[in-house]
Amino acid sequence: MENTRTLAGSLRKDHTDTSVTVKGWIQKRRDLGELIFLDVRDRSGVVQVVCNAELSKEALQVADSIRSEYVVEITGKVIERDIETVNPKIETGEIEIVASTITVLNEAKHPPFSLTDDIDVSEDVRLKYRYLDLRRETMQETFKLRHQATQVIRSFLNEEMFLEMETPMLTKSTPEGARDYLVPSRVHEGHFYALPQSPQLFKQLLMVSGFEKYYQFARCFRDEDLRADRQPEFTQIDIETSFMTMEDILAMTERMMKKVMKEIKGINLVTPFIRMTYKEAMDRFGSDKPDTRFGMELVNLSEDVKDCGFKVFRQAVEAGGLVSSINLKGKAAHYSRKDMDGMTDFAKIYGAKGLAWLKVDEDELSGPIAKFFSDDDFELFKSKLNAENGDLLLFVADKAKVVYDTLGALRVKLAKDHQLIDESVFHFLWITDWPLLEYDEEEGRYFAAHHPFTMPFKEDFDLLESDPGKVKAQAYDLVLNGFELGGGSLRIYQREMQNKMFEILGFTEEEAKSQFGFLLDALEYGAPPHGGIALGFDRFIMLLAGKTNLRDTILFPKTASASDPLTEAPSRVDQKQLNELKLRLK
Amino acid sequence: MENTRTLAGSLRKDHTDTSVTVKGWIQKRRDLGELIFLDVRDRSGVVQVVCNAELSKEALQVADSIRSEYVVEITGKVIERDIETVNPKIETGEIEIVASTITVLNEAKHPPFSLTDDIDVSEDVRLKYRYLDLRRETMQETFKLRHQATQVIRSFLNEEMFLEMETPMLTKSTPEGARDYLVPSRVHEGHFYALPQSPQLFKQLLMVSGFEKYYQFARCFRDEDLRADRQPEFTQIDIETSFMTMEDILAMTERMMKKVMKEIKGINLVTPFIRMTYKEAMDRFGSDKPDTRFGMELVNLSEDVKDCGFKVFRQAVEAGGLVSSINLKGKAAHYSRKDMDGMTDFAKIYGAKGLAWLKVDEDELSGPIAKFFSDDDFELFKSKLNAENGDLLLFVADKAKVVYDTLGALRVKLAKDHQLIDESVFHFLWITDWPLLEYDEEEGRYFAAHHPFTMPFKEDFDLLESDPGKVKAQAYDLVLNGFELGGGSLRIYQREMQNKMFEILGFTEEEAKSQFGFLLDALEYGAPPHGGIALGFDRFIMLLAGKTNLRDTILFPKTASASDPLTEAPSRVDQKQLNELKLRLK
Repeated sequence: MENTRTLAGSLRKDHTDTSVTVKGWIQKRRDLGELIFLDVRDRSGVVQVVCNAELSKEALQVADSIRSEYVVEITGKVIERDIETVNPKIETGEIEIVASTITVLNEAKHPPFSLTDDIDVSEDVRLKYRYLDLRRETMQETFKLRHQATQVIRSFLNEEMFLEMETPMLTKSTPEGARDYLVPSRVHEGHFYALPQSPQLFKQLLMVSGFEKYYQFARCFRDEDLRADRQPEFTQIDIETSFMTMEDILAMTERMMKKVMKEIKGINLVTPFIRMTYKEAMDRFGSDKPDTRFGMELVNLSEDVKDCGFKVFRQAVEAGGLVSSINLKGKAAHYSRKDMDGMTDFAKIYGAKGLAWLKVDEDELSGPIAKFFSDDDFELFKSKLNAENGDLLLFVADKAKVVYDTLGALRVKLAKDHQLIDESVFHFLWITDWPLLEYDEEEGRYFAAHHPFTMPFKEDFDLLESDPGKVKAQAYDLVLNGFELGGGSLRIYQREMQNKMFEILGFTEEEAKSQFGFLLDALEYGAPPHGGIALGFDRFIMLLAGKTNLRDTILFPKTASASDPLTEAPSRVDQKQLNELKLRLK
Repeated sequence: MENTRTLAGSLRKDHTDTSVTVKGWIQKRRDLGELIFLDVRDRSGVVQVVCNAELSKEALQVADSIRSEYVVEITGKVIERDIETVNPKIETGEIEIVASTITVLNEAKHPPFSLTDDIDVSEDVRLKYRYLDLRRETMQETFKLRHQATQVIRSFLNEEMFLEMETPMLTKSTPEGARDYLVPSRVHEGHFYALPQSPQLFKQLLMVSGFEKYYQFARCFRDEDLRADRQPEFTQIDIETSFMTMEDILAMTERMMKKVMKEIKGINLVTPFIRMTYKEAMDRFGSDKPDTRFGMELVNLSEDVKDCGFKVFRQAVEAGGLVSSINLKGKAAHYSRKDMDGMTDFAKIYGAKGLAWLKVDEDELSGPIAKFFSDDDFELFKSKLNAENGDLLLFVADKAKVVYDTLGALRVKLAKDHQLIDESVFHFLWITDWPLLEYDEEEGRYFAAHHPFTMPFKEDFDLLESDPGKVKAQAYDLVLNGFELGGGSLRIYQREMQNKMFEILGFTEEEAKSQFGFLLDALEYGAPPHGGIALGFDRFIMLLAGKTNLRDTILFPKTASASDPLTEAPSRVDQKQLNELKLRLK
């Protein structure tokens, strides 16, 4: 009931002359000798408390001993502030509490950093004192937003008659994915559970079970090296449906996103979202998760330059590669020769052997390779790249993958460098028509591009035999502002097709049976057509909250550097436990 | 949009003469030659489809090939049934669909057991074919109920301004609990993550972080042997609050339960719930989770029989033990001498050396020990045990623990045997005033009865030094129908008190710091008074759904016998993974 407590942030002029008790933390203390001001913070906001000797000598004395972040209980009368002391920056700014009694509930050491939003402190220190870091307003707001987004999504899915269902965490290690976290079994010597990389197989089994509409905020695990945009455990909005077509699933996802963006950000999304094939995304943006908030699209010049005077371009096309380009409009003057060397080094990270560039200045091409290009070439650049005075034209000539990776990355880097991105907008788009399989030269076999349960397009069924590499999958990725939010597919629901798929992936019947037997069996007992989608929730929150660090959206994230249990968690276990584990592995 | 599909169970007389398409499973097929009836089931219910040669020869042909559990898509016209063929047992019983086209979406082998609710098949077989088992109506209903209960609880907590928050699963192994599941770290040789037994420390840190009201449907793990009422992974409703008193937390939990019972079962719970101290529960019911849906309470006769003619009773009291008893009203005639031997064997499971019993017949005591009791004793049994003709009086004389355990178990067993329990009611009650510490004779030290962060009652603070075993905890368990639903406590929030607690538990300062340093540190930076509760969600659903097997409330539970990944999951990993693991353990 909390009858005896009023939330600090809820106090308004209406409360004037009432007696209230607030409980919370000391945000700030200003000591004017006869008069001490305390800003008291709780989860709802901040209120100012005044202590003076006139009203309560005792309260003033306690206030004198109080420091930042002490936990206090304060009773007093709400009064209106004088007009000149009204603080319009806080919602309680028109009133203050005159303290009659103050109780210190708990003391606090001086915090190692200021608990404001604009702190200049290393992430390691923030994580070491995560409980203090989380008191900052920006962090409180992020986790309120995360909570809110969770509820909006649930409410949407509940309205659409989905059931929230919990799948196991102690599950079976399956091949064909990232590395599993393994959990040795105590009972079964030499046996292990694996933590799920996704509930994929379980949600498919739920469809075979006739539930038809499943969702879960699913914790998933991947034992990969830490990166800024990757955590070993992460949460995904996991959805599976029966009898729905790809169009049904895309439309349902769009309705969900529309609702979230409206309720969380007040933004009216336009649906249907733009769709782009995988091929188009690569051609136009050099990326399968293009940021479409800005232009600077790639322009493929292969056909046009295959006979030009620049050998590098000619040779690339001859070798079956590409020549593609982007135009950094009006920024040529920003780049010295040395800057361009730097940009070339950046290009090399993505495998490019070099970066060709031209500046347009006084209606002429300039730069070290300008001499190789004719007036006709210049006309071509004008018409295809919209080349104008002041522009910097960038070219990569190489194998398609290198060209896309390099120009795709360069495009994003340059847009960020020159602040060409409108950070206030949310551009959703679908990438479709993915290849079903990828050929691994080293291993000499096909791998599933998505996972081995993905359904090919019907019109490509014949190609499965004749030219598997050309088969397209009924799969789709949802991209937001250059990030892959997630993706999904229709699944194979017929045993025969699934057998064929494992065959193409080089599984013997034996192997397929031992690893996926339970799914294969299930497909024989009336499996409905089904498909679904999984969306990375941590990343979605990062984008919604306008954060750039994934770890700011996770309460207790892991880092490679810190050794604290709150951050990088593995710890030594005692010798007895260790010996027991060793025994299990024999 | 699923524009093209109508849910089978939604069809009513209003739909008469409309053309519809249903998709689902064949529940039943009746072949009358010229006429085939198909019951088509989807998640919403069942509808009857008629195929006849008149309307569509093709449909009839397809229907001829169809078997149970085939997945079909059927288009046809809804017609009203003749009055004599109306089926009042199903909601669509007034109509049927006359099929114009039938498409088989997927075939199905003949199921290994009938997918009805009253099946007679071993649990192992059910789990092996869990995807079929889950198609049965009772299982579908259970998981719909589970979904619904989840949403009602969330909606309650959201309204009360709680935030749903996700704590880590890869966390630190802590002592003082059950056995942890360990996850070897790939990066840190010889280091391990542990899967959480509960998010206890994290939720306390969230309180220090100023979130004030946290909840989570938290997956928890305990590496213990499987039992009918225990799974290695389980879900708890995990709640923590700041600034709330024990009364606040109990009242909040009661409001939550009231809402769930109202919305899920249509039951108006009376609040506040009955409360009982731990001591009273043991004295009256021989259990700290008493089933109060029936009487047959324990009656302590120690004082009355300490000088009686029966040596066994006298000696037990002399040795500092107890003599307690229950009266199985009116059932004496059910029990032969041999039956009583069986009951004595049952008593011995709980450590009793024997079970003393008396029958009341024709106003006399009978049975082998009747001769030891005087008329006065009989009068005593009459007044204290309400002994009447036909009653069976049962006595245990032993150490208190043995007496409670034996009579507590016997009381429940007898009530079940004689169906004395009203299965339609839900009896909630609180058990309070738990001991803070338990003394372990073997190890010669105190252990935390709950966990080492539990707050003692203020009035017992002094006893912490002088007589720790007498200290009571600000802890509470919620009991429902004889099951412990869960429990909680106020937590220690001051560093000094927490130090003292670890001292009593025999931790050196070093040990406390290395194992709980991050919590101890956090207590020094403005930790608010806080406390919470955790409720076993799987068990709650079991009780709500009227099930007796915990595994029927978990989609893919684990069993000791089966080796299927759906059930007992650990599997062999490949040699490469195994070698890698071994390296990590060196």
